Amino acid sequence: MDKEQIVISNFANNLNGDDGAVIGNMVYSKDMFVEDIHFKSHWLSPKQIGSKAMIVNLSDAIAMNATPKYALLGLGLPRNLSSKYIKELSNGLKETAAKFNTQIIGGDTISSDKLIISLTIISHLNSKKPLSRYGAKVGDIVCYTGRLGESLKGLKTLLNGGEIGSNSRFVKPNLRFEFIKNSAKWLRSGMDISDGLASDLAKITGNKAVKFTKKLSKIEFISGEEYEMLIVVPPRNLKRVLNQAKISRIKLNILGKIINERAKFHGKFSHF
Amino acid sequence: MDKEQIVISNFANNLNGDDGAVIGNMVYSKDMFVEDIHFKSHWLSPKQIGSKAMIVNLSDAIAMNATPKYALLGLGLPRNLSSKYIKELSNGLKETAAKFNTQIIGGDTISSDKLIISLTIISHLNSKKPLSRYGAKVGDIVCYTGRLGESLKGLKTLLNGGEIGSNSRFVKPNLRFEFIKNSAKWLRSGMDISDGLASDLAKITGNKAVKFTKKLSKIEFISGEEYEMLIVVPPRNLKRVLNQAKISRIKLNILGKIINERAKFHGKFSHF
Repeated sequence: MDKEQIVISNFANNLNGDDGAVIGNMVYSKDMFVEDIHFKSHWLSPKQIGSKAMIVNLSDAIAMNATPKYALLGLGLPRNLSSKYIKELSNGLKETAAKFNTQIIGGDTISSDKLIISLTIISHLNSKKPLSRYGAKVGDIVCYTGRLGESLKGLKTLLNGGEIGSNSRFVKPNLRFEFIKNSAKWLRSGMDISDGLASDLAKITGNKAVKFTKKLSKIEFISGEEYEMLIVVPPRNLKRVLNQAKISRIKLNILGKIINERAKFHGKFSHF
Repeated sequence: MDKEQIVISNFANNLNGDDGAVIGNMVYSKDMFVEDIHFKSHWLSPKQIGSKAMIVNLSDAIAMNATPKYALLGLGLPRNLSSKYIKELSNGLKETAAKFNTQIIGGDTISSDKLIISLTIISHLNSKKPLSRYGAKVGDIVCYTGRLGESLKGLKTLLNGGEIGSNSRFVKPNLRFEFIKNSAKWLRSGMDISDGLASDLAKITGNKAVKFTKKLSKIEFISGEEYEMLIVVPPRNLKRVLNQAKISRIKLNILGKIINERAKFHGKFSHF
């Protein structure tokens, strides 16, 4: 059992285990975004760091079919950062929050060795029930949005000392708010792809096997921090969901069908 | 302008600036508790670290006259921590939360160089309005609960290589939930003493001077992380508030009266 599992099992209850915790019609989610765990400081501008920290946190809310409303911000700032750097970091957080009509309502700032951004997102459910990651059934169709792999490609380029563009998915993941909001009623379950498709597929299928109708490269399979949506669709709703994807102008990929066998592949994406 | 001020001013809005942010009848508060900023790892057992992290976070909610309900936990764990250490840390968090009927509903765990505990507390207001830190008027009486100074004494002992008892206020601050809940209707304003009385007095009086009727030592004046309550009472309510303190079996100290002059002393407690 790894250390994250010790923590998870020690706090296990009926409210956690999903992208966010649901209380009434509210969803609460929390993620940390930390220098040298999620990024090296020279890879991203302060504005990009602020923006990505906000995006990956908003992703949890959106993945549960909720509308983000408020954010609480915990900042750990190394002493050597300039005032200009901190202002740009703050602007990245604030502008990205504003794009999603989310207001930063409070938080805490401390000194730390590494840059730490700890965000809590407070969201309203778009429907009575959240879009959960549980409930997939044999015969259901597994799909994902957009393209996968670019985040890991970007990461590899950076690790090799290269540079990546400001539109790279590693810098700026896509969130699928409108598509999820409009199609959630037809979905069995859903989650964002943060640990990599291989790992997240095991979670959303409950370790059931998928009979693939789409061939994936290894990089598409293991690339983490994609924040594309992984969804499970009852076959009778597939046409409606594909149509909604068209309306939302996003690519929806059919990965395959869940079959009554245990999955053989267990991948795990770890942060670098 | 220091770095915390840059962040605060950049995110300033009508919802932040107090111990917690109020949305409807909910209060959201967030504080980070970090190794080598708030404590050295050998000063406290893992259980004490978990417990203190929870106490200082619950304090923000209680200080606003709210009942803590849920907590979100962000944990940064150094790789060298044993499973036993992590379990005890988790137990400290969980048991202290349970004492205040607060459930840990989710969060995030990552690897980090230093131990980081980032908590968000979700609370229900006990009355229509929160107990805010603003609104003090000339003529109002300033009081504080309990005794001050022991936290800094404990810290100094630890910094000098000494040991402190497990009941030291540095290890286990007192929270005044019942007293605040029952007396809030008679209070003008209130906040917990986290940065030290000198600094927090300036905040609660809006830099107005206080004509002291109680003589304080320097250590009582500057000791931070006390988490005793600093309250401002309209003179006509003082008797009721003192009576409620008696009922709650806590010591309530009358510090003095707010006068129509600017404060001369500006102290600031910094973390060690």
